[in-house]
Amino acid sequence: MTYYEENRDRFLEGLKTFLRIPSISTDPERKDDIRRAAEFVAGELREAGLDHAGLIEGQGHPLVYGDWLGAPGKPTILFYGHYDVQPPDPLEEWKSPPFEPTIRDNNLYARGASDDKGQTYILIKAVEGLLKTRGRLPVNVRFLIEGEEEVGGEHVEAYVASKPANLKADAAVVCDTEMFAPDLPTLCVGLRGIVYGELRVEGADHDLHSGVYGGVAPNPIQAIAEILCALKDRDGRIQIPGFTDRVIPPSEKESAAWARLPFDEREYREKEIGASDLVGDPSHTLFERVWARPTLEVHGIRGGFVGEGAKTVIPARALAKLSMRLVADQRPEEAIEQLKAAVARVCPRGVKAEFKSIHGAAPSLVDPENPFIRAAAAALAKVFGRETVYIRSGGSIPIVGSFDRHLGIPSVLMGFGLPDDNLHAPNEKFHLPTFFRGIEAVARYLDVLGG
Amino acid sequence: MTYYEENRDRFLEGLKTFLRIPSISTDPERKDDIRRAAEFVAGELREAGLDHAGLIEGQGHPLVYGDWLGAPGKPTILFYGHYDVQPPDPLEEWKSPPFEPTIRDNNLYARGASDDKGQTYILIKAVEGLLKTRGRLPVNVRFLIEGEEEVGGEHVEAYVASKPANLKADAAVVCDTEMFAPDLPTLCVGLRGIVYGELRVEGADHDLHSGVYGGVAPNPIQAIAEILCALKDRDGRIQIPGFTDRVIPPSEKESAAWARLPFDEREYREKEIGASDLVGDPSHTLFERVWARPTLEVHGIRGGFVGEGAKTVIPARALAKLSMRLVADQRPEEAIEQLKAAVARVCPRGVKAEFKSIHGAAPSLVDPENPFIRAAAAALAKVFGRETVYIRSGGSIPIVGSFDRHLGIPSVLMGFGLPDDNLHAPNEKFHLPTFFRGIEAVARYLDVLGG
Repeated sequence: MTYYEENRDRFLEGLKTFLRIPSISTDPERKDDIRRAAEFVAGELREAGLDHAGLIEGQGHPLVYGDWLGAPGKPTILFYGHYDVQPPDPLEEWKSPPFEPTIRDNNLYARGASDDKGQTYILIKAVEGLLKTRGRLPVNVRFLIEGEEEVGGEHVEAYVASKPANLKADAAVVCDTEMFAPDLPTLCVGLRGIVYGELRVEGADHDLHSGVYGGVAPNPIQAIAEILCALKDRDGRIQIPGFTDRVIPPSEKESAAWARLPFDEREYREKEIGASDLVGDPSHTLFERVWARPTLEVHGIRGGFVGEGAKTVIPARALAKLSMRLVADQRPEEAIEQLKAAVARVCPRGVKAEFKSIHGAAPSLVDPENPFIRAAAAALAKVFGRETVYIRSGGSIPIVGSFDRHLGIPSVLMGFGLPDDNLHAPNEKFHLPTFFRGIEAVARYLDVLGG
Repeated sequence: MTYYEENRDRFLEGLKTFLRIPSISTDPERKDDIRRAAEFVAGELREAGLDHAGLIEGQGHPLVYGDWLGAPGKPTILFYGHYDVQPPDPLEEWKSPPFEPTIRDNNLYARGASDDKGQTYILIKAVEGLLKTRGRLPVNVRFLIEGEEEVGGEHVEAYVASKPANLKADAAVVCDTEMFAPDLPTLCVGLRGIVYGELRVEGADHDLHSGVYGGVAPNPIQAIAEILCALKDRDGRIQIPGFTDRVIPPSEKESAAWARLPFDEREYREKEIGASDLVGDPSHTLFERVWARPTLEVHGIRGGFVGEGAKTVIPARALAKLSMRLVADQRPEEAIEQLKAAVARVCPRGVKAEFKSIHGAAPSLVDPENPFIRAAAAALAKVFGRETVYIRSGGSIPIVGSFDRHLGIPSVLMGFGLPDDNLHAPNEKFHLPTFFRGIEAVARYLDVLGG
């Protein structure tokens, strides 16, 4: 029996302790819990046998750092995870309380189970096992665990930008993504970037009575509708001039691999999405649409009267939250300018429309032939007993861009979540057999890298 | 000096007393004030010398009734007004408190000054003057003053429908509209009807992460935008099949009269509306667009995330409040069916869309040659010293339809508000010289009708 097999109960108890801390980063009242979670992680790193384990204090929630640099001549891996979690609302939809970890059917249910406490814990326990059984690691490692991932991660970005020497490494391992399917070892080699902002539209300088002025007064809600429809047609084709010029299509090999992925579109539509139809540009496959094509999406809209009953107002203003997901090699700043120009071009008469950017992140795409990726694929295949698949993710992980830009290193997105883990939703869970295999896979990865 | 001239100060004090009562019909905490206002009106009717002055109790806020039926063989006029008012919000924008009537520059500022306490008071004082000086009236009159006009007026409608014998009359006089311009005697001969309801759109059965699902998941906000744009083009032309088939265009005579109205479009756009451009179907004149053409307007919209910052959600549902203003001879029920059919036809893939009607009112159009209208025009012209103009109103006054349907009588819309009276807005006011002339005009109207 290996160390990892012998210690499963202890690992599970440790993870439960971690999950009981309601470290909700967006909630100012949880500041003490955030600190408790950071200290818990630092303690775990120390017990695992890492050096320099402790908190990096600065603005915002503390970063947690630890390293082991006793393998000169060997590569250095920077492990990234986060100890903060999303708010648990709506509480009434949880079958067991979000901060009382509960096992049902081989799954551990709790907020943060998969995103990202469980995955962060995998990294720590993998290193602990090697250090406890051998007294050393096959490569050098650094841990950088943050507490603001769910609120934008701006302070970790600032730290990476300002102290690159403290984080010197050859590759990062980001453990915050999903496997494509249960038991299917997966590496994510592409992430979409994002530009997120607000579209504000103003018409008359005050609310107007729709009886008296309806027929001549500009309506900012109708104007937002016209702008949204002008920027994206009914088939989901984005109509922003120049917007897709830099998009790199997936290689034939990548497309062919996606076509071989085990996937039931009907089940995806009915169970995972729960809609009567999938939409989007029909000239691209489903995986292209979610992984390799940019989007323009409206996330929220507000304007006028939305209470009970009726109020016949033509509102003076309306607002929509929009994002563009970007794919390599699109650039956030350029996309913002293109969107602003397009909004100005299609803005209807009688209103003023302005797009104001809130945040952005560049897309990323890693070469699957990169040696750190190939080593990861080999380690995963060995532990899971199946060939590793390469996918992309439609989401954005801004830290990957920071590691690239400020440290000059690629990120290996080796994640152990599953598609039904209910991230950011009630009844978040982690699949325990995958949790334990994840620990072994990360340990084996370090062995492969160590040669 | 006439009775009306002698009693100006007393009339003004009486109106101020009326305006001090915060009879906000939509506010359940103002129930006592509503009753005080009703009793104030009943007391004024009694003091004016009317018979049967008192409250009609039933569901909702009380109606106030009074009559004088001592002129057999002469016509009977049903006077309508309302004693309830809109809420005063936003309070901070009032220059003097909304329920402390204050005179500035010949205007009396208070919530309800023009809509409709001041105008209701005109009717009462006109009758009072005739009864006090002559002991009788030239025609028979009934008063029906309600307290729910600002919240839909459903109980007065029910009373009119169920007790038509109690309200037997030859014509109604509704004193709740505006003059086209200061000093310009005005009769309103057409009102738009309305259908108001909610458009509810549902996509996936739960909120989705826009990174993971953006590109394939239906977006209910985008769907509402597509529906709004499909139902009305960028030039404001409504695209609902059959919708305008019953629309009666204004006569050449009416159009020519509108073209002669004193009107500065630039001032209207800049000062009254406060927008950079007027909009709407360019194949119709401005007055046609607000008075003689139907509209489709969105009054409010809600969906997804609209808080501070960013949340990358594709919401499961979204909602918009819509109305259609109708003109003669459009029918509310038919318009609802046409809209529902059009929504079904243009609804994008992947979402379900449903329009649910909340309330409706038929349009009305009175023949300017009707003798009650002609008499009113003559009386107004005499008092104001200028020819009376005929206009329409883009708004809806549902009671006019009730009088037509249940009592079989036309309504004379003789109003004394001015376009800058700030109805339903902060700093509502009534122009005092017009208030006093209104009293004399109504008295003269009764004289003209009495022969």
